[in-house]
Amino acid sequence: MKINVIRKVLEVNDRLADEIREKTNLSKTLVVNIMSSPGSGKTSILEKILPLLTEKGYNVGVIEGDIATIKDAQRISNKNIPVTQINTDKFGGDCHLGSEVILPALETFDLEKMDIVIIENVGNLVCPAEFDTGSDYNIVVISTTEGEDKPLKYPLMFRVCQFGIINKIDLLPYLDFDISELKTNIKNINPNMEIVESSAKTNKGIAKIINWFENHLK
Amino acid sequence: MKINVIRKVLEVNDRLADEIREKTNLSKTLVVNIMSSPGSGKTSILEKILPLLTEKGYNVGVIEGDIATIKDAQRISNKNIPVTQINTDKFGGDCHLGSEVILPALETFDLEKMDIVIIENVGNLVCPAEFDTGSDYNIVVISTTEGEDKPLKYPLMFRVCQFGIINKIDLLPYLDFDISELKTNIKNINPNMEIVESSAKTNKGIAKIINWFENHLK
Repeated sequence: MKINVIRKVLEVNDRLADEIREKTNLSKTLVVNIMSSPGSGKTSILEKILPLLTEKGYNVGVIEGDIATIKDAQRISNKNIPVTQINTDKFGGDCHLGSEVILPALETFDLEKMDIVIIENVGNLVCPAEFDTGSDYNIVVISTTEGEDKPLKYPLMFRVCQFGIINKIDLLPYLDFDISELKTNIKNINPNMEIVESSAKTNKGIAKIINWFENHLK
Repeated sequence: MKINVIRKVLEVNDRLADEIREKTNLSKTLVVNIMSSPGSGKTSILEKILPLLTEKGYNVGVIEGDIATIKDAQRISNKNIPVTQINTDKFGGDCHLGSEVILPALETFDLEKMDIVIIENVGNLVCPAEFDTGSDYNIVVISTTEGEDKPLKYPLMFRVCQFGIINKIDLLPYLDFDISELKTNIKNINPNMEIVESSAKTNKGIAKIINWFENHLK
């Protein structure tokens, strides 16, 4: 019974996700969905790349997903970037963003003027991977402190993402962490994933992330 | 509609959870459910405490929850501890352990002989908090690399746990992390939570975690 219902929810979700892509193809807005464990550094990376994308003349908006608080939205807003917060505690404490909440959130922006909308999903390596948000691409952020085994333990997340950011690379000297093993594990799950090493602290990899966005504009 | 179904699932879950507690009260087995984000160090802490609990003469078993792989179970088994792995990909990739999978997992142990069973839940700060596993206590592990704001952003997790382990304390010198702010945030959500700082690398706090278990034996 549970599975049937999840299927129904997923069907509705997929239909709305397609609707979102139709809309954003018309407005030529690139929509990117960023996912990770809690505390991997999604917001810190956004704080770095948003001003650079703006400087380059792109109109960027952000949809922030959290169960509670508007803390991340405040951090984005401090960078003078338009941001819409979705708090899922109003939707039963949902552990992910579905397209049914992304659609109205997107409508808070003037899509015709928007080059890029970035969705920062709820911090969670499991459920967000199961729900199509209507984005054009999915990015996973994994930090060096999380261990090399995560792609094997959370395979769906690494399967649905086209771009992987290995963050907190500045901590490598202090960790028992084998980055080549992580990369091998990622490639075993998703051989096509593009991977960048980054640090929101030292700016390593930030230029490459900007390049990735520019290469995927509509 | 979705909410109705979740309610039904939760009702069944709660009934089975009570059944588990009846069983383990009879056998005087302490059942503890450990939860955290992926990569916070749950398994590393278990690798430290399990041999110490065994040395003290306690019979301990572990139930490992992961979506995929038996990697963590292998690490526990290497310490000569009986371990039962639940892979939730057989249950639709569930993001948590429900009492319906814990009950048969518990039955793989001779409960009459077991002093302690530790459940290592799926790495996820959201969903596992919503499902009573039938445990007597819940522990949350949060690592210093995850940021001070997590109790505010994932309040339910911190509300349902009686004991909090702040792990990877050895990394403090290399992080912009204010541990007193984390503690304040925890206390704001759950003023009664007992908190220990730990490092599975330097052994800091491990003795205190052992004490906690001894203080809560049935």
